[in-house]
Formats: sequence, C-alpha cells, structure tokens
Amino acid sequence: MSFPCLDAQEEKTATLQNRSIESGPEPSYTTGKHLVFKNKEPFLLDWGGTLREFDIAYEAWGTLNASRDNAILVHTGLSASSHAHSTATNPKPGWWEKFIGPGKALDTDKYFVICTNVIGGCYGSTGPSSIDPSDGQRYATRFPILTMDDMVRAQSRLLDHLSIKKLYASVGASMGGMQSLAFGVHFPERVGRIVSISGCARSHPYSIAMRHTQRQVLMMDPKWNRGFYYESIPPHSGMKLAREIATVTYRSGPEWEQRFGRQRADPSKPPALCPDFLIETYLDHAGEKFSLEYDPNSLLYVSKAMDLFDLGAAHQQATRKRRAENEKRLLERTKAARDDPSCSLSLPAQNYEETVTVAPMDEKVASAQASGPPADLVEGLKNLQNHPVLVMGVASDILFPAWQQREIAEAIRATGNYKVAHHELGEDVSLFGHDTFLLDVKTMGGEIGKFLAWKDQPA
Amino acid sequence: MSFPCLDAQEEKTATLQNRSIESGPEPSYTTGKHLVFKNKEPFLLDWGGTLREFDIAYEAWGTLNASRDNAILVHTGLSASSHAHSTATNPKPGWWEKFIGPGKALDTDKYFVICTNVIGGCYGSTGPSSIDPSDGQRYATRFPILTMDDMVRAQSRLLDHLSIKKLYASVGASMGGMQSLAFGVHFPERVGRIVSISGCARSHPYSIAMRHTQRQVLMMDPKWNRGFYYESIPPHSGMKLAREIATVTYRSGPEWEQRFGRQRADPSKPPALCPDFLIETYLDHAGEKFSLEYDPNSLLYVSKAMDLFDLGAAHQQATRKRRAENEKRLLERTKAARDDPSCSLSLPAQNYEETVTVAPMDEKVASAQASGPPADLVEGLKNLQNHPVLVMGVASDILFPAWQQREIAEAIRATGNYKVAHHELGEDVSLFGHDTFLLDVKTMGGEIGKFLAWKDQPA
Repeated sequence: MSFPCLDAQEEKTATLQNRSIESGPEPSYTTGKHLVFKNKEPFLLDWGGTLREFDIAYEAWGTLNASRDNAILVHTGLSASSHAHSTATNPKPGWWEKFIGPGKALDTDKYFVICTNVIGGCYGSTGPSSIDPSDGQRYATRFPILTMDDMVRAQSRLLDHLSIKKLYASVGASMGGMQSLAFGVHFPERVGRIVSISGCARSHPYSIAMRHTQRQVLMMDPKWNRGFYYESIPPHSGMKLAREIATVTYRSGPEWEQRFGRQRADPSKPPALCPDFLIETYLDHAGEKFSLEYDPNSLLYVSKAMDLFDLGAAHQQATRKRRAENEKRLLERTKAARDDPSCSLSLPAQNYEETVTVAPMDEKVASAQASGPPADLVEGLKNLQNHPVLVMGVASDILFPAWQQREIAEAIRATGNYKVAHHELGEDVSLFGHDTFLLDVKTMGGEIGKFLAWKDQPA
Repeated sequence: MSFPCLDAQEEKTATLQNRSIESGPEPSYTTGKHLVFKNKEPFLLDWGGTLREFDIAYEAWGTLNASRDNAILVHTGLSASSHAHSTATNPKPGWWEKFIGPGKALDTDKYFVICTNVIGGCYGSTGPSSIDPSDGQRYATRFPILTMDDMVRAQSRLLDHLSIKKLYASVGASMGGMQSLAFGVHFPERVGRIVSISGCARSHPYSIAMRHTQRQVLMMDPKWNRGFYYESIPPHSGMKLAREIATVTYRSGPEWEQRFGRQRADPSKPPALCPDFLIETYLDHAGEKFSLEYDPNSLLYVSKAMDLFDLGAAHQQATRKRRAENEKRLLERTKAARDDPSCSLSLPAQNYEETVTVAPMDEKVASAQASGPPADLVEGLKNLQNHPVLVMGVASDILFPAWQQREIAEAIRATGNYKVAHHELGEDVSLFGHDTFLLDVKTMGGEIGKFLAWKDQPA
C-alpha cells in the first residue's frame, strides 16, 4: 500500500529544510500592513507573568467622531488577525468583510470600527514568536501563561492611546464573544453595549477536551521541540493535525451530510488509509492550508487562555487576589514571575479512575435545569446589569453549544437587566455550526445591525 | 515551563526500547484464553484482497440446544475482544459482563451466546499483526483492505464450523450494530431476529471525519513506520492521541459538565500546557491506558472498514459486481490481488475548494425530511422485511447520532416490515453518549431481554 499523505509531509519537511537563509526558516505570520500600538509600560498578567512591553497590531475603518464616542471594538476568534476588512494598504478581503462597511451591520458611515490582533497571537501583536526584550531571543514557551482578561486589559491600553474613553459597543464571535463579555465585565464604564455571538461565559469541559486534543497532537510533533523551533523547521505536521481536529468542531454533521455525503475522492480507485472520502480530502486541505499560516506556540497559548476563561464570581475573586499578591511581589523584586520554577503542573500520583453512577443522572439534570443560571455566574456578570446585550447562538454548533449562549442571556437577565436580546439560530436557518458567524451575513449581520442602531432611551 | 506529559512519553519510549528480547518488542494483544476456529480455505475480500487462511478467536456462554437453534451471535465494537463475559478459563469480567448470564438480557439459561473477535482485529483473529503464511512475515500494511461484510462472512464460516444453520438472533452495538444489520442483510436465512444499538446503516461524513483524525495522528507518529513497527517500538504516542480523540466522541458534553465541570487537577498550581483540567487528565489516562492494548494497524484497518460501511442498494450492487470480477480474476491467476500496485488512491490534482451557499440550505433539509428514508437504503435493507428488528439510539450520542438509528428503523419499516421496535434514549435517561451501551444495563439490557423473549407468532 502506498501513503501519498505521508510522502507529502516528508517532502514538505525537506522543502522547509532547504529554504534559503534569507527567506528565514520561519514563515511570516503577518497578513499584511496594519497599525501598531507600542505599549512601553510593564504589563502584569493574571497568572503572575509580566511583559516588559508589548505591541498590539490593529486596523480601523470609518471615522472617529469629534466626541470620540462612536468606536466599536471587534474581538477576533482564536486564529484571526486584525484584518477584519480590507484597507487601503491591504486590499485583501478581511475575515468579516461582508459584515463591515458603509450600510453594513457594522456601518462605517456611523461607527469607527477597530479590530486588534490579541496579545499571544502572531499577526503583529506580542506573542510567543516575539523577541523577549530581556535577552533578544524569541519567547517561545518562556512566554507567560495568559488569559482572556489579560487580552482585554491590553486592548484597554490601546483605547487609552487612541483617547477613546468609552466604546459605543464591544462586538465579537467565538473567542471574540468571550472577550466581548469580558471587556464589559472588567470595564463596564468603558463600553455602551455588548454583542456576544457563539461564545460563552465560561469554558466547559467538552470544549476544553477538543482543544486539549489539538494541543496534544501539536506538542507530540517532534519538530515542536518544546516550543523552540524558531531557528529550525516549524511543526507543520502537528499544526496540520490540530487544524483538522479543529475543523471538525467548526462545522456540523448535517451540513457535511448534504455537502459531501459518502462521496469518495476517486471512486474508481480501491480504498486507501490516506485521505480517501471527500470529507477527508476537505479536512486534509484545511489542515494543510493552515499549517504554516499561524504560529504553533500562539495556538497553544491562546487555546489555553480559552480553557481558563470563567466569568463566574469565584474565579474573578481568586484572580483579583492573585493579582494583588503578584503586584506586591513585583514591587519587592524585579525578577519576572515567569522564571519561577514552580510554573508547571504536577498531576496527582493516582490516575483518574472512572466511577459510573447511572441512576442519579436524570435527577441531577432536572435539578440543574430547574434552578436557572448558576448564582456564581449571575454574580460574576452583575457589572453588565445596565448594558444592552445581544447574545446569539447556533443550534448546530458543537464547539460552543447553544445552551452556553442561553446561559449567558439568562445569567445577565438574572442580574436584573431587561435589555438582553437572545437569538438562537435553528437548523432551518443554519447548518454551518460554529462557523455560522463567518458566513451568515443575512441573519447574524441583520441582528447585529438592528441591535447597534436601536435607541436605548429611558422609559 | 516544564512538560511532564512529554517527559512521560519519552520515558515510555526508552522503557520499550530496553525491553528484553524474551518479552518481545510488541505487547501481547490477547486478553486471555479463548477458542480458535481455523479456516483453511482461501477467503476473497470485498475489495479484491485474499486471505489464504484465517483464524477467528471466539468465546461462548450457555449451552447449544439439540436443535441447534438457540444461538445468539454478539458483534463487538471497534476495539473489543471476544471476551464479552468471564469464562472458566478467563475469569476477568468481560466488556458486556452484566448483559450476559443466567436471567440477564442475553439469558444463558435459554441461549447459547457466541462472541468473536473480528478479522482485522488483534485479539486472536487474523489481522495485520498476524503472520502472512505466504512469507512467514507479519502482514503489517500488506494486509488487504477489508469491510464489515468481510467480517460477517468470516463469522458465517465459524457458524458452519459449529454446525449452526440459523442464529436465534444477531446482536450488536456501535460497530457491532452495523455488523448485526449486515449479517441480516447478507444472510437473511441464517438469522431469526436482529438487534442494532447505536449503530448505523451507512457511515456518515461526520463519523468518517472523527475516525480520519484518529488515523492521521497515528500514521503521523514516526514510530508507526508505515505499519512496519513489529520488530521495533510500537507507535504508542500516536495510539494515545488517537484514543484521546476517540474518547471525546464516546461520551457527551453534558455528562462531563456534571462530572468534571471546570475542576483543575491541582488548583494550587499555575496552569500548564500539559494536562491541567480534570477532563484533560481523564483523557490523558484513557489514551495512555489504551496505547499498548490494541494493535495500531488493526485500529487503522477496522476503522477504515467502518468508513466504508454502506447497506444502500447501489453500494451492495457495486460490491457484488467487483466480487464477481475478482473471483474470475482469481481463477485466472493465483497471484493474490493485494499485490496489485494499483492499490493506492491518487487524490485529485485540484485541492478541495469550498463554495458556500447559505440560502438553499433550509429548503434542502426540509425536502430531505419530508421525503422519508432514502429509497436506496430501503432497497438495500429489503432482505430484513420479515425479521423482527430492535433498533436503539441515544440522544446524547455524537458519534452515531440518534437520527442514524431513526433512519435504520424507518428504512426497514419502509420495506413493509411491521416488526420493527425503535427506542431512543433521551437525555433524561442517559447522558453517557455513545458509551451508553456499555453502561445502561437497566434500560438497554431490559429492552434487549424483552425483545429476545418476545414470541413472534403469525397473526
């Protein structure tokens, strides 16, 4: 039996090995020209690491008005750049091209739309592939663990720099939907209204499991080399595998049933262990395309930040306590917290052992459903009790299931907020699963446009 | 940052490297003592390969009656052995221990229960880790592609050997649910009634995608060595990753939400890129446990056979045509068809390009739902029109979603069969997803027992 899929990987490794020194061993992760905000102040992260300085890559569309109160901050998904829409200096279509522009959902005739690349990313913002100013070497896995909250706090520094005191709205989908909420919770006075699409108020174990498998396949690629691959060949095979797994979670079964069914790539040939069915060649292509497009270490850090996301009150309180201790410690010593050798997790000596209890399950579910949104989450979201909030979910989404958006809406309503709109797109509207937010300009774009234009007047 | 999960992998590789020659480089995949049926006749497979001879490992419980008509054949899931229940020679609990026995769902006071290890497997039946009699070497990836239908045809030879003309019932879950249907379709005169649990009548692209990612992570492990690892270190890391992905598909999000929530393995430690949340240590442990328990090549071949499964009439017809041609070819030359160099798939030169059409989706779904089960499938299942059939599905199953079991039931009913029982277990009954068939003795076992005991009398 022959293995063309493995031959292709080996050829690719050989090609990367033979690249000229001028072109550099690492691909360029930037997607084009963008603006850069350089923050020169030290930045303490939630888990105790510090960045001596950081850059934020950003792009903007429309015009900031004289009162500087028409800005909308768009938060991206995991792997997206600041290039949400084409610009004069980078005419390539952006990832939300049809949602932004004159008369569009994010109407640039009315709003000044800003999109950033998150810190931890690789499209111009400071991340693991950036140079650590303390030694002139790339951070790699010396980069500190970071959180969604760190990302939005970094964005708030950009807003200071742009002299924007208060956003008209914070808008995001997927990871951006998490950040959009986080921005409102942590800076309630700096934002007017919130749009959160296909996101969540805290990660749940199923999403963590899916991201765990992606991180594991990447880290198991010997070329990953514990994060120190920048002078060598990037772990393109691990990245390809990680993206294939991610792609499975981005779409839905029923959509694939319609689009690919059981078609084989070449029905005249006998079956093969390498990609064979059309769905397999689709995944193979999606993985291959991404394998050199994004920095592997950024994938690890940003994906980990998503796992750690929790807007519950208990988690916020623990974070505040840790931050206060770290701030004190920072004052006491200049040594960066990230050099602390304790920064690794020891697993319990005892392996996890499954104990199955079938009977009480239905009672537990019934009781969970009866009791409404968790009190800890209601408490954690109370800063949003006066903000108009739009929450959207998609029934066919398996990565951020629709119940997570219902949870957001119910928890915010339970804070006493009467200005929460919640839309759940059924399978009759979209079978595109999680990716619906990239595709459905009509329904999603339509709802966003209406919500942003709505006049919030006192009764 | 330290990486204990990678340290563990490296240590394991070193340990495997240092094993003594006596214990062999490969682990033993057999789970204990079992019976073996040795078939010495050549066996032509659906895709043109041949096995000059094959073994089937099997175990049995209860007593075959004098008229030899009380036998039940139990079909296994992908990675299970013939050890469905403990035996005198192997007292370890079997994978369906609580479903089989005196007074149990498969009542050994009444039935003679047989369970086999599938061909292609590694628990005593002929598979890729077996010796090819033509050269005395292990088959590895020289093993021919095989199908579900090949597996049940091999089982029919075992029944010949046991002088069982007609089974009382064919029973199986997961891959076994596919085989149970296949046995009825291909040998309608050899089986009285059919039980198919959490299976399907043909694989759908989402399941193919999930299995594709498992095969790819395994094949990318350099230790897999294109299947020739038997004299060296088995690809335990790739197997571990594959099993972690599989485990994600075996359970459900809501169950994990209740069981693990957002608990971290050690909340006193800072986060790590290696397993950190409790759900991650659970997956890590499940993967690790399996990594040397099952033959990697068996995983590839059996998983591929699942992808190829399709009981539609068109597929059956194409298979019959191919078999007829291969039988003719076999008569003409003795050279095994598997040496044919054409046995590899060339992908189209053009990569798969996505074209998105949002609008017509809801119409397509509506039309698909309105038209009932596909005519091709109804035609393909017409051999089952007089068999009592029990079909069960689980609402929380994402690998074999409940709609696939509805499809089976509706398609068989559409053949004119009035003896089709269909039960769908809602989330109030089970949140265990696909694995419900291993756990829910009460509901699943209860329904199986009732169905088997039901007296099918002419009206």
